[in-house]
Amino acid sequence: MREYFDLELKALNDKLIEMGALVEGAIKNTITIITNGEYDKLETSRMIEEKINKMEREIQNYCLNLLLLQSPVAGDLRTVSAALKMITDLERIGDQAIDIAEMSTYLKDCENIYSMTHLSEMAERSSNMVTTAIDAFVKKDLKLAKTVATMDDAIDDLFNKVKQEVIDIINANKELDQQAIDVLLIAKYFEKIGDHAENIGEWVVFSITGKTV
Amino acid sequence: MREYFDLELKALNDKLIEMGALVEGAIKNTITIITNGEYDKLETSRMIEEKINKMEREIQNYCLNLLLLQSPVAGDLRTVSAALKMITDLERIGDQAIDIAEMSTYLKDCENIYSMTHLSEMAERSSNMVTTAIDAFVKKDLKLAKTVATMDDAIDDLFNKVKQEVIDIINANKELDQQAIDVLLIAKYFEKIGDHAENIGEWVVFSITGKTV
Repeated sequence: MREYFDLELKALNDKLIEMGALVEGAIKNTITIITNGEYDKLETSRMIEEKINKMEREIQNYCLNLLLLQSPVAGDLRTVSAALKMITDLERIGDQAIDIAEMSTYLKDCENIYSMTHLSEMAERSSNMVTTAIDAFVKKDLKLAKTVATMDDAIDDLFNKVKQEVIDIINANKELDQQAIDVLLIAKYFEKIGDHAENIGEWVVFSITGKTV
Repeated sequence: MREYFDLELKALNDKLIEMGALVEGAIKNTITIITNGEYDKLETSRMIEEKINKMEREIQNYCLNLLLLQSPVAGDLRTVSAALKMITDLERIGDQAIDIAEMSTYLKDCENIYSMTHLSEMAERSSNMVTTAIDAFVKKDLKLAKTVATMDDAIDDLFNKVKQEVIDIINANKELDQQAIDVLLIAKYFEKIGDHAENIGEWVVFSITGKTV
C-alpha cells in the first residue's frame, strides 16, 4: 500500500515538474517575442498556455483523487495540498506570459521603446525567480525556496523605475504615449509573475517544513 | 452519517458566505476611502484583509479535512473542490482591495483626479460583479452565476477609457503625471477584481452543473 502511494506521489511530482517546465518555456517564449520581435512565436505561446491549463486541471484531479482514495496524513498531506495550491500560481504565470505576448503585438514596429526602460531587466529577473522557485521544488531545497522571496524586492524597485521612465517617455514624445502605457502594463504583469514565483517558493517551504510563511 | 455530512457541508457553505461578505466589505471600504478620502478607514481595510486571509486558511483546512475524512463523491466532491478554488479568488480580491486602498494614499490631496476619469464607474461595476458572484453562490442560482461573465466586457471597455484619460491627463498637466499613472494602476486592480469575480461565477456554475466553463 505504502509503496503504491509512493509511486503515486512520484507521479504527482513528475507532473508538477513537467508543468513547471512548460511555465518556464512560456516565459522564455514571451521574452523572445519581446526581445527579438518574433511575433510568429505567438502561436507557440498560445499552444503552451493551453497545455498549462490542461495540466492544471489534470494535476488538480490527480490531487483530489489522491486525497479521496489514499487519505494521506502529515508530510504526504502537505505535499498534496501544496501541489493543489502551487498549480494555481503556475497557471497564473502562464496566463500572464500569454497576456504579455499578446500585448507586445501592440508594440510592433516600435520595439526600441523597451530599451528606453528597465523592462528587459524586469523580464529577466522575474523569469529567474520562476526558475529558482521551480528548481527549489524539484530539488526539495529549503534554502533555495527561501531565496525566492529575497529576489522580489529588486523587481519591485525595477517596476518603480519603469513607472518613472514611462512618465518621462510620455512627457518627451507625445506620439509614444499609448505604447509607453502598454510598456507599463507589461511591467505590471512581470511584477505579478514575481509575486506568483514568491508564492511557489512559500508552498515549497510549506511542503518541506509544514510552516506557512 | 449522511446527515452529519450534510451538516458539515452546511457549515462550509456558511463559512464561504461569511468570507464572501468580508470580501464585499473590503471592496466597499476601499471605495469609501477613494470616494470620500476617508484615509482613517485604511486600518479597517487592513483588519478585514487579515480576517480574509485567516478565513482562507480555515476554509482550506476544513475542505481538506472533509476530503480526507468523508471522501465525498459526485455533487458533494464538486462542492468541496469548487470551495477550495473559490477561496483563492476571494482572497485575491481581498488583496487587491487593500492594494488599492494603500495606493490611494499617494493620491491624497488630489482626489479630484478620479473625477477626470471613469475610475469610479469601474469601481462600482467591479464591486457589483463581486456581489453578483457571491449572490449566485449563496442562492445556488445558475442563471445569476452565468450573468457574471457577461458583466466583464463593460469593465474591460472602461479600463481602455481610463487608459486614454490617463494619457490625456499626463499630456495636459505634467504635474499630475505620477498621480495619473497611479490611477491607471488602480484601474488595473479593479479590472483584476472583475476577472476574479468571473472565476467565482464559473466555480458556482461548476459546483451546480459539473461543467467547467
